[in-house]
Amino acid sequence: MTSSASLYEQYCEHMRRIADVRYAAAVLQWDQETYMPAKGAAGRARQLATLSETAHEMATAPSFEQLVNELSQRSDLSQVQQKNVSLTLEDLTRQKKLSGAFVRKLSEAVSKAFNSWVAARKQNNFSVFESDLEQLVALKRESAELYGYEGHPYNALTYEFERSVTVEKLDKVFASVIPSLQEVIAKQGKEPEVDNDFLREFYPKNIQWEWGMWLVRELGFDLEAGRQDVSVHPFTTNFSAKDVRITTRIDENDFANMTWSCIHETGHALYEQGLPDSEYGLPSGEFSSLSIHESQSRLWENCVGRNLAFWKNYLPELQSYFPEQLQHITIQEFYKGINKVQPSFIRTEADEVTYHFHVYIRYQIEKDLIGGALAVKDIPARWNELYKQHLGVVVPDDIHGCLQDVHWSHGSFGYFPTYSLGSFYAAQFWAQAQKDIPALQKEELNETALAQLLGWLRKHIHSHGRLKDSELLCSSVTGESLNVSYFLDYVKGKF
Amino acid sequence: MTSSASLYEQYCEHMRRIADVRYAAAVLQWDQETYMPAKGAAGRARQLATLSETAHEMATAPSFEQLVNELSQRSDLSQVQQKNVSLTLEDLTRQKKLSGAFVRKLSEAVSKAFNSWVAARKQNNFSVFESDLEQLVALKRESAELYGYEGHPYNALTYEFERSVTVEKLDKVFASVIPSLQEVIAKQGKEPEVDNDFLREFYPKNIQWEWGMWLVRELGFDLEAGRQDVSVHPFTTNFSAKDVRITTRIDENDFANMTWSCIHETGHALYEQGLPDSEYGLPSGEFSSLSIHESQSRLWENCVGRNLAFWKNYLPELQSYFPEQLQHITIQEFYKGINKVQPSFIRTEADEVTYHFHVYIRYQIEKDLIGGALAVKDIPARWNELYKQHLGVVVPDDIHGCLQDVHWSHGSFGYFPTYSLGSFYAAQFWAQAQKDIPALQKEELNETALAQLLGWLRKHIHSHGRLKDSELLCSSVTGESLNVSYFLDYVKGKF
Repeated sequence: MTSSASLYEQYCEHMRRIADVRYAAAVLQWDQETYMPAKGAAGRARQLATLSETAHEMATAPSFEQLVNELSQRSDLSQVQQKNVSLTLEDLTRQKKLSGAFVRKLSEAVSKAFNSWVAARKQNNFSVFESDLEQLVALKRESAELYGYEGHPYNALTYEFERSVTVEKLDKVFASVIPSLQEVIAKQGKEPEVDNDFLREFYPKNIQWEWGMWLVRELGFDLEAGRQDVSVHPFTTNFSAKDVRITTRIDENDFANMTWSCIHETGHALYEQGLPDSEYGLPSGEFSSLSIHESQSRLWENCVGRNLAFWKNYLPELQSYFPEQLQHITIQEFYKGINKVQPSFIRTEADEVTYHFHVYIRYQIEKDLIGGALAVKDIPARWNELYKQHLGVVVPDDIHGCLQDVHWSHGSFGYFPTYSLGSFYAAQFWAQAQKDIPALQKEELNETALAQLLGWLRKHIHSHGRLKDSELLCSSVTGESLNVSYFLDYVKGKF
Repeated sequence: MTSSASLYEQYCEHMRRIADVRYAAAVLQWDQETYMPAKGAAGRARQLATLSETAHEMATAPSFEQLVNELSQRSDLSQVQQKNVSLTLEDLTRQKKLSGAFVRKLSEAVSKAFNSWVAARKQNNFSVFESDLEQLVALKRESAELYGYEGHPYNALTYEFERSVTVEKLDKVFASVIPSLQEVIAKQGKEPEVDNDFLREFYPKNIQWEWGMWLVRELGFDLEAGRQDVSVHPFTTNFSAKDVRITTRIDENDFANMTWSCIHETGHALYEQGLPDSEYGLPSGEFSSLSIHESQSRLWENCVGRNLAFWKNYLPELQSYFPEQLQHITIQEFYKGINKVQPSFIRTEADEVTYHFHVYIRYQIEKDLIGGALAVKDIPARWNELYKQHLGVVVPDDIHGCLQDVHWSHGSFGYFPTYSLGSFYAAQFWAQAQKDIPALQKEELNETALAQLLGWLRKHIHSHGRLKDSELLCSSVTGESLNVSYFLDYVKGKF
């Protein structure tokens, strides 16, 4: 009988090779969104489809399945090894439900939809995107049937991003959060209006870029193990823990856009750079779930990056980049300005309170798309109706409406809810971090305090990879499972 | 019996998928040389190794071999189809001689060597590169044995770049060219020294970049189907005919460096953009050979880009970018300056006459490395000795010596000779183009004349892909096979 150690090493090497192909696809996607010339799209779509299919075939190869099954029977593996094997077996069982040809078709449909989303944005016209999105939604509905589900078909898709999440749970979570947030908004509406016009002065592109690069470095992003570029929609991707890429976008008439996207994506990037590189390709080297990933970006973006103590320390530095625009702004004016609660159109630019209405709206739409209750052609009308209903705003056009997010063009349905869950986890982690790290309660959040926070996150969250799922991670870090009252307390305390 | 049409379509689809994986690897390599952060190297090496092995396995899969064999027996294929199948069969027969594991090992060794070449350049010290290069040379010698050869083992490696080339032929070609070039150099040495100090004024980086981008567009490079970036060593790569990437490097104290690298790489890029995109993945969609590829870059770089008629038209434009540096330079001074014949250290910056000594030196060294007559550790001494002997210059350090070229770190042994052959083909094509295109003989080589030249190259060379090998292509374009007297006449006429 082959020794377990030797079988496990065979398993690891095969997993690393699957990761090689997946990360190669990620490089091609990153290039597609940053540097690829327009006419390269068709070739790139083919190449991505072949890599997806190849990775899928490697991950579901019968000989590999046999190996994983055999390993799952072995009792002389370490706990970490056992966990890796059992997670791989779960993944494999799920992936097997799609054929290689279906995966290829899906990948081709995604590339097509992504390119027509870009084109539709240029023309500010949803109908340019419509038919490719229709095809993609049809394939995602088909994949839900292939995966199988209990309850709502949407549950088959959320599983990919956050295993324990279902429509039933999400409805409950939103029901417990949305009314409280409505109260906060109503209360804010009665206060005198905050003036944050200073954020819409002219902020030159090249200086914003320099400031953003300074900032991401200051937060701890290792630029020898990553880089930042510009794309239509900011994102983070990685090709190993030693090569993590973030992107941003710059609006010369909106200072907030780039700065908080830099902080947000750095939060994601710090997680990826903190995963154990020695576990490349294994579950123990991967992030826990998308909600946990988002908890990292939202913790840095909001709990840190919209914190008074943070800007007490960093506003002078920022003013040295933009003396003309910001010299005359006091720390209180700045803090109030960057935390103005105001219903708006664009999710990524929303304040911490109204943000969750943006997510909730998307959640309702995609649940209905996957459930078959909403047709793709009716998205714009439904979108605009929900924005009117929940946020009281009249969406002027598709680019400020249903064309703003890249996710659906990527075929990512069931992803948005992790944005809210991530914020809720973030508040809970932040509360714990403040208990554990005295420096965080000080008047100024400086470099030392940030480094201690990063060390704490590395130790308690990043280093565990996928060995703990969201719930287990949350309990082991904070002593209880997800509890939205941390988030509500945080919001009520702040606003 | 399955119809030939259906079998051929199966063959095409498999070829396209192999191309997908190979082009994906090319994207990863491009990224490695342009944007990848330093610490990403180890992960990237793994990923490239897996892609190489995967492409190799796809290309040598027994079922595919059977398909190609079956197709090669069919008589109802078109001529183009037959040619594609027979070239694929030749490639397959050769590739089969290496195992997937060997291909993987080679790819890993290349990545290691490339990274230590970059490090060695930073430290200006060949010994940093030595042991990884040794491992690579050992693997290349092993691959020569696996491929098999007649005569010199180097012949097994040149075959990859230019099938018909052997040590015997190369020795003969160089023997017929080198003495004549020596005469030209001796003659030039007796003339009053040309002053081209104006090329070493200060040329700001950002303006060079703008000028270079203007120039590549003017030459016909389609920037919607390609792009230019910066790298340590300029190169061209492509991921389809619709996504062709060139790179350049900028030296603020040497204007010539970027400008002629832009023209050179654009020559390569125009060839790739001119290949039939509908033949993606098939021999009919690939370049003919590296000599022919180089004929395109050298034709644009030298026959066009160092031509008096070209600069009569474009010098005013250039002067508008660099008025301070160039306003006072006459067209005659400029022309003489950019064509100064002077033995030097760096191949890519050499004039058209001394250039071939650089190639000849590398040829001798790599022939001896592969033949076993020279050890890797002795490269610097041998290099410097040959530079003293052939060019009369004393190499000051490794960066001006044996560390200047990226090729050996890529494992590309047998590649350099195609640089000289390419120049010889270029001169022969240029002579023919001048006969065929009246506009080329005019006083000024303007946009119209360049467009006509590009059209001529597209028709006679680019569009044929790999359906004609170098010799056949040369005969069909010029009426005779490679004849170095065209090159010698060109050089003697010019200098």
